[in-house]
Amino acid sequence: MRPSTTMLRGLPPFRDLPETLLAEIDAISDLVTVEHGQEICRQGVVPTHLYYVVEGQVTLASTAPDGTTAVVEVIHPLGDFVLASVMVRLPNLQAAHAVTRGRLVAIEAEALREIIERSPALSLALLTSLSREYRNIVRQVRDLKVRTTAQRLGCYLLALLPDPNAAEATIRLPFEKGLLAGRLGCRQENLSRAFASLRELGVETRGARVTLRDIPRLTVYAMPDYLNDPEMTELTRAGSDIEPATA
Amino acid sequence: MRPSTTMLRGLPPFRDLPETLLAEIDAISDLVTVEHGQEICRQGVVPTHLYYVVEGQVTLASTAPDGTTAVVEVIHPLGDFVLASVMVRLPNLQAAHAVTRGRLVAIEAEALREIIERSPALSLALLTSLSREYRNIVRQVRDLKVRTTAQRLGCYLLALLPDPNAAEATIRLPFEKGLLAGRLGCRQENLSRAFASLRELGVETRGARVTLRDIPRLTVYAMPDYLNDPEMTELTRAGSDIEPATA
Repeated sequence: MRPSTTMLRGLPPFRDLPETLLAEIDAISDLVTVEHGQEICRQGVVPTHLYYVVEGQVTLASTAPDGTTAVVEVIHPLGDFVLASVMVRLPNLQAAHAVTRGRLVAIEAEALREIIERSPALSLALLTSLSREYRNIVRQVRDLKVRTTAQRLGCYLLALLPDPNAAEATIRLPFEKGLLAGRLGCRQENLSRAFASLRELGVETRGARVTLRDIPRLTVYAMPDYLNDPEMTELTRAGSDIEPATA
Repeated sequence: MRPSTTMLRGLPPFRDLPETLLAEIDAISDLVTVEHGQEICRQGVVPTHLYYVVEGQVTLASTAPDGTTAVVEVIHPLGDFVLASVMVRLPNLQAAHAVTRGRLVAIEAEALREIIERSPALSLALLTSLSREYRNIVRQVRDLKVRTTAQRLGCYLLALLPDPNAAEATIRLPFEKGLLAGRLGCRQENLSRAFASLRELGVETRGARVTLRDIPRLTVYAMPDYLNDPEMTELTRAGSDIEPATA
């Protein structure tokens, strides 16, 4: 089934493209349903499609030759995956799996590249989109290099807040803790230890619900840089489920 | 001084652009000399230029709010920096410093964006270039998440080899150990410990010269994925100084 130009226009890089161009993209696109755990892309294989998540979540994970796997990113609705590999026609560095049942827009890679080559508007839109993704992953490298796991967890939680100036709030983790550990670059037992370290800073957990009792103190401890980096908050927040504190 | 269209054509993304387009880029470019340690870009400031390294090396480092600094990347000749931030007109996530005396091509950001908007060839060339850089940094995240420091060091050394199938070789580290530690995401004392761990795998160091006595054993230990990923070797090798083993 074609996604329709209306749905395509809802994807950030396509927002301002002319309707005729969207119709061309629509003609080489499919709206597909994926099931929980389904492999969407295989690591080491040249991608045949560029994907946008419409509903659900997708993990991008990279496996080392000894079988160790690391979740590099979790893609939320309106995010894309394998754009870089599509552009350079090189094998995927990561495998993509559906975390939940979901819907994706799948755009044929070869046909898309052909449109990009003659459409400066599309090329520029994707260049801008990839630039944002690039900056996002640079932040992840910085985070892995300068922060402890507990600080990374603190920053992650703070970035989910609707109002960083509030004193307290309750938030819902957008995905389960195994995935969160992978995203933060630690084992699940280290994530539990990190949550334990944050307890004395007023961080309480009940399943996926996390209550932050002393946001200013947590901020001092985790030293997030998102406060002077609005783009990051925006990106991290996508797909999160914010609840007001009711305590 | 203008870099000349000939020099611009030597930069990978510009290789196949028409001469008239290169002349336009040349008109908004400067060939600049930087001194050892000089700050080229400041973190948190919107970049005014896109840079290509022609000679020398440049570090990209990110500082956390508490002052902890991490080297995210070392840029070798023909590499660019701050492309993503130029494209989205957002503050640099990283500061750029010259490691050595060097020469850079500096292209005016605003004027470049204006050319990109009407030139599909340039836009596509930069999209391809950024895609390669994106893949490179995904590899770095994976590396930080799945490998120990000693394994990361092993992979780094193996990627400098001219012939990964050789039994032994001597290589020269392309930059000093403080920078190498930053690039590998560890403190300098951990780098020394990592070199010590690799000693029993036949890795001997004398200053910047490193001799690998048993490449097959080091390969098994470090489990590099570059062997089935030619693009990575190419990127990592840029600027390295290969010497045949003479022992």
